[in-house]
Amino acid sequence: MGKTARETFRVPADLASAADLAAIDPRARPIGPRDKSTAAQELAELGERLDTLQEAHYAEATAGGPRAVLLVLQGMDTSGKGGVIRSVGGLFNPQGLRIATFKKPTDEELRHHFLWRVRRHVPTPGHIGIFDRSHYEDVLIARVDSLVPEDVWRRRYTEIAQFEAELDAQGITILKCMLHISPKEQLERLLARLDDPAKRWKHNPADIDARRNWPAYQEAYAEALRRTDTDAAPWYVIPSDRKWYRNWAIAALLAETLAVVDPRFPKPTYDVDAERARLAAGPTH
Amino acid sequence: MGKTARETFRVPADLASAADLAAIDPRARPIGPRDKSTAAQELAELGERLDTLQEAHYAEATAGGPRAVLLVLQGMDTSGKGGVIRSVGGLFNPQGLRIATFKKPTDEELRHHFLWRVRRHVPTPGHIGIFDRSHYEDVLIARVDSLVPEDVWRRRYTEIAQFEAELDAQGITILKCMLHISPKEQLERLLARLDDPAKRWKHNPADIDARRNWPAYQEAYAEALRRTDTDAAPWYVIPSDRKWYRNWAIAALLAETLAVVDPRFPKPTYDVDAERARLAAGPTH
Repeated sequence: MGKTARETFRVPADLASAADLAAIDPRARPIGPRDKSTAAQELAELGERLDTLQEAHYAEATAGGPRAVLLVLQGMDTSGKGGVIRSVGGLFNPQGLRIATFKKPTDEELRHHFLWRVRRHVPTPGHIGIFDRSHYEDVLIARVDSLVPEDVWRRRYTEIAQFEAELDAQGITILKCMLHISPKEQLERLLARLDDPAKRWKHNPADIDARRNWPAYQEAYAEALRRTDTDAAPWYVIPSDRKWYRNWAIAALLAETLAVVDPRFPKPTYDVDAERARLAAGPTH
Repeated sequence: MGKTARETFRVPADLASAADLAAIDPRARPIGPRDKSTAAQELAELGERLDTLQEAHYAEATAGGPRAVLLVLQGMDTSGKGGVIRSVGGLFNPQGLRIATFKKPTDEELRHHFLWRVRRHVPTPGHIGIFDRSHYEDVLIARVDSLVPEDVWRRRYTEIAQFEAELDAQGITILKCMLHISPKEQLERLLARLDDPAKRWKHNPADIDARRNWPAYQEAYAEALRRTDTDAAPWYVIPSDRKWYRNWAIAALLAETLAVVDPRFPKPTYDVDAERARLAAGPTH
């Protein structure tokens, strides 16, 4: 047996700085498919497994089970958060999916604790939540752009770890993926957005400002990963310069994670034979 | 040119009673594919059209456009509301989908006006909302089971029509589908749920009670359709004894409806060339 996706992509325990992050190759393919067409085939197979697991997960909650799954997606602009939602999120039955996109906080959100808006989107039992950006923005852009004083964002690492431990204790399995791209790949993707009239709406001039702060962001990511990688809420670094590899890797992580959750179809709370008899007795109209 | 799905499935203008509803064949295939494999192929093609239309619809809202689409699904138990969400909802990018399931109202919901909980789930601009059951339960089960006095549920037809006109005025395109099945098909599906251990969780003994009230429900549906079918929020009756035909019909309705909405990619609010220059000038790291 080769290594699992959970072992392979888990953030290195000794990751300490932006340099360590830069040492991870965004084009690496340490396990899994070597090319796009194999990846498409494997993704379809993973989709079937995810479908079965998700249905049992959803069914379990209808009988009162508390469990849910939360996938947190973080990454620089163009790293593919939207692409993962489309390609990997699209493998699930939308009934059991809950997507939450965290944009620039509103005035109301800013008047609350930074976790207030996040708590409102925690997936309910039986659901698979996907966070497109998350509370990690509050130690990323908030830090790089000095949106709050340093002592405030510094305190947040502990608050986040506590929050995630709390979710874990209530039955929510968390997996956090950093979509790791190279600055060169980002440049190409930003230019591609400007070139294609059907993609221009995705461009935000602020993305170029963020790009100029690349080293500061990588430092902020490195510290966030180091301070909040726990067994209850592990961080994975996903090589994301190749979109098809990124999608495969996250689908594989989800399939392994759901297999560990091991959801079960609930036992009926009614008498199956009695129900059959009631149906047989009823009017047929 | 043959008839469109919107023309074909629109509730007959002269539908007045349960007998008129019963006269619509739940196995009818008035237009479109004649068999399952053709339907699968056409559904995939519709999926590509829906994907393009949805992206423009989503993009339009990022520039401040107010428009959204709302698909309301109603039907007797096992008629396929969940199946439509899975098979038709699954054709969309989950990022732009908002599924809301309306179960038995909670105590808090019951303390509010019946539309209170519904308003909270109206899709935001750029999104496609799907209601799995809806405010129509308040003139269906509420009427059949006498959950409220007659004058209360009678008033609701007008309240619903006003509410939907309001949504239409704010830019929300509504389409309402009644998944029309025969009592015989329902019996087979209920028995199949009891036979398959992986489906037993879907069975609710109350479904058999509702089945016994089939004529009363059909009467309630007929009146709801007649009283609330408007050009702003049309009702469609979908022959649903064949799952593949039901899915194809609703996908076709959505594609036609989105084509009428005719969403547009917004014009950039920034200077494309200036942005290219900023990117070229920036550090490459």
